[in-house]
Amino acid sequence: MLRQLVRRSGRALQGSAARPSSYSQQHALHPATRWYSIQPEAASTSKPLDIDPTRLSITKTQSPKTPKDPSQLIFGREFTDHMLTIEWTQTDGWLAPTIQPYQNLSLDPATCVFHYAFECFEGMKAYKDSQGEIRLFRPDKNMERFNKSAARIALPTFSPTAAIELISKFAKLEERFIPNQRGYSLYLRPTLIGTQKTLGVSAPGSALMFVIASPVGPYYPTGFKAVSLEATDYAVRAWPGGVGDKKLGANYAPCIVPQMEAAARGFQQNLWLFGPEEYVTEVGTMNLFLAIKNKETGQKELITAPLDGTILEGVTRDSILSLAREKLAPEGWLISERKITMKQLHEASLDGRLMEVFGAGTAAIVSPVRKISWRDTMVDCGLLENEESGEIALRMKDWIEARQYGDEEHEWSHVC
Amino acid sequence: MLRQLVRRSGRALQGSAARPSSYSQQHALHPATRWYSIQPEAASTSKPLDIDPTRLSITKTQSPKTPKDPSQLIFGREFTDHMLTIEWTQTDGWLAPTIQPYQNLSLDPATCVFHYAFECFEGMKAYKDSQGEIRLFRPDKNMERFNKSAARIALPTFSPTAAIELISKFAKLEERFIPNQRGYSLYLRPTLIGTQKTLGVSAPGSALMFVIASPVGPYYPTGFKAVSLEATDYAVRAWPGGVGDKKLGANYAPCIVPQMEAAARGFQQNLWLFGPEEYVTEVGTMNLFLAIKNKETGQKELITAPLDGTILEGVTRDSILSLAREKLAPEGWLISERKITMKQLHEASLDGRLMEVFGAGTAAIVSPVRKISWRDTMVDCGLLENEESGEIALRMKDWIEARQYGDEEHEWSHVC
Repeated sequence: MLRQLVRRSGRALQGSAARPSSYSQQHALHPATRWYSIQPEAASTSKPLDIDPTRLSITKTQSPKTPKDPSQLIFGREFTDHMLTIEWTQTDGWLAPTIQPYQNLSLDPATCVFHYAFECFEGMKAYKDSQGEIRLFRPDKNMERFNKSAARIALPTFSPTAAIELISKFAKLEERFIPNQRGYSLYLRPTLIGTQKTLGVSAPGSALMFVIASPVGPYYPTGFKAVSLEATDYAVRAWPGGVGDKKLGANYAPCIVPQMEAAARGFQQNLWLFGPEEYVTEVGTMNLFLAIKNKETGQKELITAPLDGTILEGVTRDSILSLAREKLAPEGWLISERKITMKQLHEASLDGRLMEVFGAGTAAIVSPVRKISWRDTMVDCGLLENEESGEIALRMKDWIEARQYGDEEHEWSHVC
Repeated sequence: MLRQLVRRSGRALQGSAARPSSYSQQHALHPATRWYSIQPEAASTSKPLDIDPTRLSITKTQSPKTPKDPSQLIFGREFTDHMLTIEWTQTDGWLAPTIQPYQNLSLDPATCVFHYAFECFEGMKAYKDSQGEIRLFRPDKNMERFNKSAARIALPTFSPTAAIELISKFAKLEERFIPNQRGYSLYLRPTLIGTQKTLGVSAPGSALMFVIASPVGPYYPTGFKAVSLEATDYAVRAWPGGVGDKKLGANYAPCIVPQMEAAARGFQQNLWLFGPEEYVTEVGTMNLFLAIKNKETGQKELITAPLDGTILEGVTRDSILSLAREKLAPEGWLISERKITMKQLHEASLDGRLMEVFGAGTAAIVSPVRKISWRDTMVDCGLLENEESGEIALRMKDWIEARQYGDEEHEWSHVC
């Protein structure tokens, strides 16, 4: 049945830009069509529209900012001159997109985003290549996930290609904010919020998509710095049948206290374990990879948790798996999406078979891990004392950056 | 360890209005004090302040609305003339409260409430008694839960009595919006949102509490109307170690799709089952009560799910349990907070031992259930065809309303 829910959500991605939100409307629908499809009645008169890039209007700022010295950038604090916004209503679908000066949102205090967390987002980056062209990295993956997140909380879905076209235009318009140096980029934050201003708990009849942009520097300006993790066993981030695999606001606020608990004991991030088996799932807001030598055969294995509904479908995770299959498998590596317990990880460490551990996400690409505090044990993750990264994390970062910055021409890189 | 987290959160209620949010600050703390306590350093210089009702300023609207005809009211659509707002910053604590004309919130698009669901709320009501006095119902329970919700997502906590004093003043100011009829009230929506305008995922350094008010009519204007439920087994609302027992926005948006799925098949609400045992937990956004006769002894038992971290700590739930212990136990009833499976419920129905089932929440007080669709079975919940409520639901509604409207003087009723 869970698969059924996912499949239905998937169907929403194929173009429907509207669905009835009141129960009475749904009751009139055949069970097989449900709320994801456009109602025949509505379609015959005024079909709600999908996002239409040709209707874009641009209003440029009268007071352009001076881009900050790149070395002074802090993640997500400085924003560019403009923002991309697209309103949606249940009746009309997606309205004309606008790029306008960066400005506050003015919302009724009863707006559903403040009360019921009708909000989802994406994190992606625009890079400047050696020719000065602006490139997005795998934006199709972000838009696919964005649609899945939206559908899961009854927000409207949209055409991924239309959204990518608009985001590309927006990124190009802000290109003077993208530093021309390796490691620098423009972080893009597409966000979708419910804007209905009534307190009844139901599907929002209106929504707003907005994209803001923040110039960012390298996560590790002076080279890798390995982090230490605390395994969290007293709180649970995600569970089967829940929404932990979607990029919803709802998944983030509840993570802060465990993160602060870990920080209070001197750990940069917490590691989420799941269930009595203590499966290793994610670290803070990143996916996790382990490189382990097989006990019997000595074969090297790169392991990450499978997409069982409790793991965020990271774009970096997917890129690492792809690259590993392309470049590490021929070297004899086994590439596995499988469950692994904290106990097994600990055993591999004690045996000297744990080669390296690293987090993976858009912000840092990879984030090497030195040790994990688990119960009363400190699990060593295989780095030498003077090492800040293992070999695989390092190679992955280089391979991914080569495609992000267009040094290697690849279909993952989308020229704006 | 879960208990430990809860206990620590509980400690936050005892007066701390601020806590350090940066990791470096936490690192300096002794593990036993953590971030919930005021730092000795900070306290010695400028102690962040708790909510202070004596600093309240009131700006009345220049364009007062005409209260709507009570019979036309729809839940959460019409609001009163004013709103209560209290800002918080990490440095200064709670700033001076204001009551000002109801107006839009103007927020930077990077504000953390839009991205990471830093938001929690309460639902409570003000009633007009036969003397024209305004009364709140158990506001201490709401403020206790509000503080627990806030602490769980790293938002600031506050003095419950100070908040109740301000909400009382606000409710009195809006008294012309409270219809003078049984079943009518002023729904109050205290809300707390994170307002930090940066994209880093961390504890917000600023927040805003606001309270808005919406006049509401009786949930069942023409008497009870029993609802039908669909048991949901493909999606899971809450999990041990998660946040399902807190009143966070994060718990609501993910509930809409299963609710719509149920509605599409003709059911007013969905019933959340948990685990392979299919424990009966909550219905839509209400707690659930069952009245069952014991198979062996014939003793009547009123059952609701225990507070194991997956159940919202409903104020109405607590009131019903209290009243049942006070008034039903002497009649020979057993009052139980215990787990019960869907299978057991079904068996009781087949045996004719299922007397009645009802939801419990602030909006409806009680909501009788006629039937539950479970797998391929329709489970009859004990009502006769021409009945819209069982006896216990009816008595509970009368008992609770008597205290809400002040017909029975009781400590649960707070005169504003």
